[in-house]
Amino acid sequence: MKTFTDYLWFNTATRQEFVRITDEVSAIVRKSGITDGMVLVSAMHITSGVYVNDWEDGLIHDFQVWLEKLAPSGLDYRHHRTGEDNADAHLKRTLMGHQVMLPITKGALDLGPWEQVFYAEFDGQRKKRVVVKVMGLP
Amino acid sequence: MKTFTDYLWFNTATRQEFVRITDEVSAIVRKSGITDGMVLVSAMHITSGVYVNDWEDGLIHDFQVWLEKLAPSGLDYRHHRTGEDNADAHLKRTLMGHQVMLPITKGALDLGPWEQVFYAEFDGQRKKRVVVKVMGLP
Amino acid sequence: MKTFTDYLWFNTATRQEFVRITDEVSAIVRKSGITDGMVLVSAMHITSGVYVNDWEDGLIHDFQVWLEKLAPSGLDYRHHRTGEDNADAHLKRTLMGHQVMLPITKGALDLGPWEQVFYAEFDGQRKKRVVVKVMGLP
Repeated sequence: MKTFTDYLWFNTATRQEFVRITDEVSAIVRKSGITDGMVLVSAMHITSGVYVNDWEDGLIHDFQVWLEKLAPSGLDYRHHRTGEDNADAHLKRTLMGHQVMLPITKGALDLGPWEQVFYAEFDGQRKKRVVVKVMGLP
Repeated sequence: MKTFTDYLWFNTATRQEFVRITDEVSAIVRKSGITDGMVLVSAMHITSGVYVNDWEDGLIHDFQVWLEKLAPSGLDYRHHRTGEDNADAHLKRTLMGHQVMLPITKGALDLGPWEQVFYAEFDGQRKKRVVVKVMGLP
Repeated sequence: MKTFTDYLWFNTATRQEFVRITDEVSAIVRKSGITDGMVLVSAMHITSGVYVNDWEDGLIHDFQVWLEKLAPSGLDYRHHRTGEDNADAHLKRTLMGHQVMLPITKGALDLGPWEQVFYAEFDGQRKKRVVVKVMGLP
């Protein structure tokens, strides 16, 4: 059994942005030399998420409209008394999830036909990180 | 350390349906010969989920009513411009979660007294798949 | 490769309570002797959750207000026909998530600067349990 750890860095141009990272995660899995096991992809900041869903711009728009409806920005959140203005980002990332575990089989990500991995930024325009840890058999 | 991979197939009679899969996952764990470790149970399609909660029909009904309230079908979703009509299924599966990791201890799923594993279908009536990957010590 | 399993017990003074458990999980990781791998932290009861977010009382208050809005208590849930009165607790724990997988690197939890692990109790005042399973290299 072996493990392999890497990190992806993000600094998005806009405050909220969803970035497809399937290829970057695949590349780390290849580099790991692990052919059967699992890879954890987990946001290391608490205002961003990682999720698996469709690579379709319309749906990404729908997700963002929906998140704003369920977890609106601009409310009088108590968290904002600390000087922060991003309480909604904490809630939105909770709805999307902040990590996924992807199976690795026969040397590659074992994903369904439409599964794509995304990084979901809700408070961007600064450097943030995702940990990618692979564990399994060479 | 060893790994073992299997798949569960579903083709539900109705569009939305929750199916208990605790026994199927347990059977795969037994077949794997792994007695201590973890098993990942993850939907491979992006309009279905996997979750752990109560095996009680009333609560399953409550979940479905609640999901329809938070992520309604029939809205003018942008995803539907692609010809799809299932944007709500993508949102609902996000709320329920699409995967769980179950601990295996002393040769069996290490679950609490009421924990049951469910497959949550939100766009069924066609063949869909769940990956079950076991990793641990024999 | 080795594994190590432990359990955390809770009996909260109030029905709903969020408890920081980062230090308890770290202590189990140290005790495990595993220096590179992953640790699963998962609620074994279906009315409580485990999540990663900010250790800030204002935000915890915001989470609780928000959960009550999205998954209100006191509605006429069908689950209550069984004699239970906690359907909202099942929904709230679904929103927060019931488990996290934390990476272990160089002998410690590999967390971002603000990541803290919490136990989220939604139906407390009785004994409940969280499983902590570590897997990886010594």
